[in-house]
Amino acid sequence: MQNIHLIISYDGSKFLGYQIQNEGRTVQKCLQDALEIINKEKIKVDASGRTDRGVHAYEQHCAFKTKLDLDETKWKKAINSLLPDDIYVKEVKKEDELFHPRFSVENKTYLYKINIGDYNPLSRDYIYQLNKTLDIQKMKEASKLFIGEHDFRNFCSNDEIEGFSFVRNISSIEFIKLDDTLEIFCIGNGFMRYMVRNIIGSLIEIGLNKKDISIITSRLDVENRDIIPYCAPSCGLYLYKVNY
Amino acid sequence: MQNIHLIISYDGSKFLGYQIQNEGRTVQKCLQDALEIINKEKIKVDASGRTDRGVHAYEQHCAFKTKLDLDETKWKKAINSLLPDDIYVKEVKKEDELFHPRFSVENKTYLYKINIGDYNPLSRDYIYQLNKTLDIQKMKEASKLFIGEHDFRNFCSNDEIEGFSFVRNISSIEFIKLDDTLEIFCIGNGFMRYMVRNIIGSLIEIGLNKKDISIITSRLDVENRDIIPYCAPSCGLYLYKVNY
Repeated sequence: MQNIHLIISYDGSKFLGYQIQNEGRTVQKCLQDALEIINKEKIKVDASGRTDRGVHAYEQHCAFKTKLDLDETKWKKAINSLLPDDIYVKEVKKEDELFHPRFSVENKTYLYKINIGDYNPLSRDYIYQLNKTLDIQKMKEASKLFIGEHDFRNFCSNDEIEGFSFVRNISSIEFIKLDDTLEIFCIGNGFMRYMVRNIIGSLIEIGLNKKDISIITSRLDVENRDIIPYCAPSCGLYLYKVNY
Repeated sequence: MQNIHLIISYDGSKFLGYQIQNEGRTVQKCLQDALEIINKEKIKVDASGRTDRGVHAYEQHCAFKTKLDLDETKWKKAINSLLPDDIYVKEVKKEDELFHPRFSVENKTYLYKINIGDYNPLSRDYIYQLNKTLDIQKMKEASKLFIGEHDFRNFCSNDEIEGFSFVRNISSIEFIKLDDTLEIFCIGNGFMRYMVRNIIGSLIEIGLNKKDISIITSRLDVENRDIIPYCAPSCGLYLYKVNY
């Protein structure tokens, strides 16, 4: 069996998310449908992690096992010829059998884009249209509180099951302002569902001067799980890079 | 009667174009429908010019006559509240009765965006996915041939009627390369249908080394109208600025 690693990008705006569901358009379903045609059998595709409905990927990593022996260029052409135009295979790599797109992850970078200028209809599905100014200096200061190993149980979805660890390590949160767009890059060793959007949501509330920086200290590393943080909209979020 | 000037932007990807048609979704129809609700009567909206199906506008200028007396801020809020999310009124200005969005135009800037890197599903509706390298130096050289007053009858749609002048004045064509995106800004005193896309199409053919620079001299200022130039796809084109 060969272990084929795919580096893909997608526009999340017309997908219900990465993971296959009983019904509806998902990235995994599109990939598996394409691979079933090529392989003439059902193929399960694993990924570095799910992305939610509306979330984009500059660089998502997937892998599947196959008996077929094609070279990388042929795999890339064959899969892309069968995918819709909102998913694209950028690179194909043959890996040894130990490679797993989720378990082998060293760290991940997420990017969140916010329009702090006037509403822009051209970027409405790709940049969160906050359309308000933010105190970026205050957000930078607040972001430092997330750095390092912390218990993020109050910064994830209620779907995340008790019993597993809520501890993750965020190594960096960087801000870049390009004209009216604020880009926030967040690097960590793992992210639970809604975790990036909850971190960004808290930073936005602080940047708008709606909430004080203390909301972070009062929510991080706390056992009580009754706090519902503000979750920033999915359209601004990109899985940006995965390191193995 | 008041003469109300609107500066709008729109994402052209889900419109059949600016101009109202018997059926289908157009920018003019959305504007007129919104204004009919506010004015409680049918309102005709003029524009600086049409944009074709799929063509975007960073800055389109429109105007309409009305008996209603609202201030600019109220007009902006009222119209935006009734528009779909792919059109946005950026600014409202009350003008004297002589202002006309088409006849008062001094010059227009169009922007054309080309992806010369790998296919990007995230920009497929907003940047033409050429996905090939271009000889930009050669394109710059070729673009100089368009500058000044020329007869563009071989660089426009067959819809453009004989009898009217085909002479237009292009004052500038500038190239900016940002990573994998080539941006071409084209300024002129007027543009016929398909004119920008035919100019860009010729420059692309030259940049790909498919055609020689002489295709421009052999097509410009020529009376024969039997040449069908390559028309670059609409998704890369933006009405960028209109000067009055």
